Amino acid sequence: MRAVDIITRKRDKEELSPEEIRFMIENFTKGSVPDYQMSAFAMAVLLNGMSHGEITAMTLAMAASGDQLDLSEFGGRVVDKHSTGGVGDKTTFIVAPIAAACGLPVGKMSGRGLGFSGGTIDKLESIPGIKTNLSTEEFIQQLRDYKIVLTGQSADLAPADGKLYALRDVTGTVQSIPLIASSVMSKKIASGADSIVLDVKVGRGAFMKTLDDARELANVMVAIGKLSGRKVIALLSQMDQPLGHAVGNALELKEAIAMLRGTGPEDLHTHCVDLAAYMLILGHAAQNLDEARNMAQKAIDDGSAWARFREMVKVQGGDISFVDEPMKLPESKFVYSIFADKDGYIKTVDAREVGESSVMIGAGRAKKDDQIDLAVGIMVYVKVGGKICKGDLMFEVHVNRKSDFDLVFEKLKSAVEICVEPVDPPPCFWDVIGVN
Amino acid sequence: MRAVDIITRKRDKEELSPEEIRFMIENFTKGSVPDYQMSAFAMAVLLNGMSHGEITAMTLAMAASGDQLDLSEFGGRVVDKHSTGGVGDKTTFIVAPIAAACGLPVGKMSGRGLGFSGGTIDKLESIPGIKTNLSTEEFIQQLRDYKIVLTGQSADLAPADGKLYALRDVTGTVQSIPLIASSVMSKKIASGADSIVLDVKVGRGAFMKTLDDARELANVMVAIGKLSGRKVIALLSQMDQPLGHAVGNALELKEAIAMLRGTGPEDLHTHCVDLAAYMLILGHAAQNLDEARNMAQKAIDDGSAWARFREMVKVQGGDISFVDEPMKLPESKFVYSIFADKDGYIKTVDAREVGESSVMIGAGRAKKDDQIDLAVGIMVYVKVGGKICKGDLMFEVHVNRKSDFDLVFEKLKSAVEICVEPVDPPPCFWDVIGVN
Repeated sequence: MRAVDIITRKRDKEELSPEEIRFMIENFTKGSVPDYQMSAFAMAVLLNGMSHGEITAMTLAMAASGDQLDLSEFGGRVVDKHSTGGVGDKTTFIVAPIAAACGLPVGKMSGRGLGFSGGTIDKLESIPGIKTNLSTEEFIQQLRDYKIVLTGQSADLAPADGKLYALRDVTGTVQSIPLIASSVMSKKIASGADSIVLDVKVGRGAFMKTLDDARELANVMVAIGKLSGRKVIALLSQMDQPLGHAVGNALELKEAIAMLRGTGPEDLHTHCVDLAAYMLILGHAAQNLDEARNMAQKAIDDGSAWARFREMVKVQGGDISFVDEPMKLPESKFVYSIFADKDGYIKTVDAREVGESSVMIGAGRAKKDDQIDLAVGIMVYVKVGGKICKGDLMFEVHVNRKSDFDLVFEKLKSAVEICVEPVDPPPCFWDVIGVN
Repeated sequence: MRAVDIITRKRDKEELSPEEIRFMIENFTKGSVPDYQMSAFAMAVLLNGMSHGEITAMTLAMAASGDQLDLSEFGGRVVDKHSTGGVGDKTTFIVAPIAAACGLPVGKMSGRGLGFSGGTIDKLESIPGIKTNLSTEEFIQQLRDYKIVLTGQSADLAPADGKLYALRDVTGTVQSIPLIASSVMSKKIASGADSIVLDVKVGRGAFMKTLDDARELANVMVAIGKLSGRKVIALLSQMDQPLGHAVGNALELKEAIAMLRGTGPEDLHTHCVDLAAYMLILGHAAQNLDEARNMAQKAIDDGSAWARFREMVKVQGGDISFVDEPMKLPESKFVYSIFADKDGYIKTVDAREVGESSVMIGAGRAKKDDQIDLAVGIMVYVKVGGKICKGDLMFEVHVNRKSDFDLVFEKLKSAVEICVEPVDPPPCFWDVIGVN
C-alpha cells in the first residue's frame, strides 16, 4: 500500500477500505506518512466527503493510535458527555455530579478553550491545588474509588488526532464533518466510555452555524457509535446566545456551583437537567425521560450532586474552601456595567461577539499558547425573548485593566439587538438524535 | 496575508487574486509556506479548479521564481516547442533543425523521461561527449552564434515548478489541468520564448487520455499565452499508438537522423512537417500553412536541416562521427523479433503497453533516479489501419539480457489487436487550437 494511491482514490471520490484508512493513520502517527501527504488527504476528505463506514474506520484507527482505556470493570455503565464547544457552557460541572449522584460512574476527560469557545479544564483550574493532569492509572483508580473524575485530555490517548488537528488548523481543513466527527469520537472511544451524550451546539456561538450542518455532524457521530458498538445520543442545542449568565473561567465555575446548590439561570437549568437525564438513560439508571429528569432534579434538590462535586474537588487535591465560599475564587479588580439605551424586547444576544469579547479581555486564547486570566469575564443578563427597559443592566464586564473595558464596550453593546415587537424565546434544544 | 486563508478561499471555490497566488508561490519557493500547506492547496486546486486568470497568475509567479531569460535581442522571433509527452516522440531532433534552417533562432530546453514517456535529453545523450547542461549564459551565446541550442532544463529557471512538481508527484495532485498547464507554461515563459508550439498528445500513450481533457489543457495554455503576451498554438495529436517506429533512446535518435536525411516513417514525417510549419508561422518565416509546409519539406530535401543538426551536435561537444555513422551509436547485444500469428488489419497498437515494455527492459525510468540503458528499446513495425499477414514482423526487441525479452513478449504481443474488417488509419492531429 502507498499513501499516494490512497490519496488519489479519495481524490477520485472512491470509498476507501478500513485497511487503507488504518494505513494512513498508523503511518501518519509513526511519521512515515509525512505531513504534506496527510494535508492533501485531509483536503480531499473535506471536499469529497466520507461514508459512515470510512469515518468509523478513521475514528477507530485514531482511537487505536495510542493508549485505550479498558473500563469494562464498570459493567458497561460508564457514560461520557461531550460538547462541541460554545460560549458560557459550564454544564460538565453540573451534569457529571448529577449522574454520579444517581449511581453512574462518570469518568470524563475535557479540553481547554480555544478561540471564542471556553474549556472545562481552564475553568476547573480556578480552584487552587486541583489536579487536572491525572495519569490514566490515577483516572481509573479514582473512578473505581469515587465514581467521578474530571481531568484533562491525556496526550497518550488518540495521539493521531492531536497531530492531525494541528495540521488541519493550518491547512484550511478544520471545517469537515468527517474530520470533526472522527476527532471527537476517537478521543471518546479511546477514553473507554460505553455510551456518550453529545451536546452539539448550533448557531452564532458554535462551530456549526446551521441546523443542517449540526444535524449532519450529529448523524455521523451517532452512526460511528452504532458501527463501533457504543451507544450515542446527540442533542442539537441552541448556541445563538450564551448559555446561562456567566462567560469566563472563575465566573462560570461560580455559576455552576450556584446551580448545584439550587439557584441559577433557567436556560442553564433546563439544559443540564435534560443532558443529565439522557446520561441516566444511556447508563440504565432510568427507563424514560420523565423518570430521568425527576432523578436529575432530585439530585440537585437533595444536595447529593453538590456533595459529589465537593468530593471530586477534594479527591483531586483542590482547596474545598474555594468552592464552599466561591467569593474566594479569582475576582477581577474592576467590574463595569453596560445598560440598555432603549425599551423593547431582546431579539439577539450574539454569542460569538460575547465569546470574542471575553477573549479580548483575557478570558480566552486567540492562539494555543496564550496565557489566560481566570478572574476576568462577562456576565450576560439579557436573554432572547426577554423584555427590557432603558437603563436595565445588560452586561457586567469583569476586567483587570480599565482599558480592556473600552476595548469591548461597543462590541458587546452591538451584540444585543432590541426590537419593538415581542420575540419568542428560542428552545433549549432543536432536536435529539439517536434516541431510539 | 496568510497561507491558510488563501487555501481556505480556494477550498471554498472562490477566485484568488494574482497577489494571493504570488504570495503562495513566492513563499513556497522561499520555504516559508511549508510543503503541507502547498499540498493542501494543490489538492484544493485539483478538485475546485482555477480560472484562466488564476492559472496565468500562477504561471507568471512560477516563471518569476528564478532566472528569466531575456531573448529580446532576437527580435521577438524565438520559437519554442513543447510536447506533453508520449511514446516514440523524437520530433524535437527534427523540427528544431528545420526551423533553424528556415532562419528562426531555436533555443530549446528539454526534459528527461519518466514512466512510459521518454525524454529528449536522454535520447540526445546517446551521442558521446555532447553537453546537455549548458548554463544560461552558454545557452544565449550559442543561440546568438549558431541560432540553435538543445539543452536540459536549467534548475535556475522556474524553481518553484520543480519543487511543486516533486510534491504533486507524492500527493496525488499531478492530474490537474491548471497545475499541468502552469507547470509547462512557467518553464516556457522563464526560458524566454516569444512564441510556443505545443504538441498536446491524446490517447493511451499520453497523460491526457481523452480528447476533451486534451482540448481543455490546450485551451488553458493558449489562454495563458494570450494573457501573458506570448503567441501559443496547440496541436492535439494522436498518441494511441507510438509515433514512428523507434521507442528507446539511441533507436529514436537513429530514426530522427534518418528522417533528417530524408527517410523515415510516414506518420513521423507528417507530424514533423506540420509541427515545424506552425513554428515557422509563429516566427514570421512563412505567411500560411502551405508555404510553411513547403519550406519545412525543402529544409529536409536540400539537407539544410541535417546540416544544422550536425552543427549543433558539434558545437555542443558531441562526437559528430556518431551521427554521421549512426551504427556507432549504442547498440544492444540481442535483437528478438515478434511476429503476427494471424492475418487481418491492425486495429490497435497500444502505445502505453509499448512504452511500459520499454521501461521494463531498461530504456526508461520507473522512478526519477533510475539508471537507463541507452541501447535498448523496441522497434514497432505495425501501424493502425495497416494490413498484416501471419508471420509478418511486428516488433524488434533490442535488449542486453535475454530474460528481458521474456519479460515483455506477452505484453507486446497483446498490445496489438488484429481484426478481420479493414480499419481506417487515425489522423496525425485531431485539432489545432489558437491558430487565429
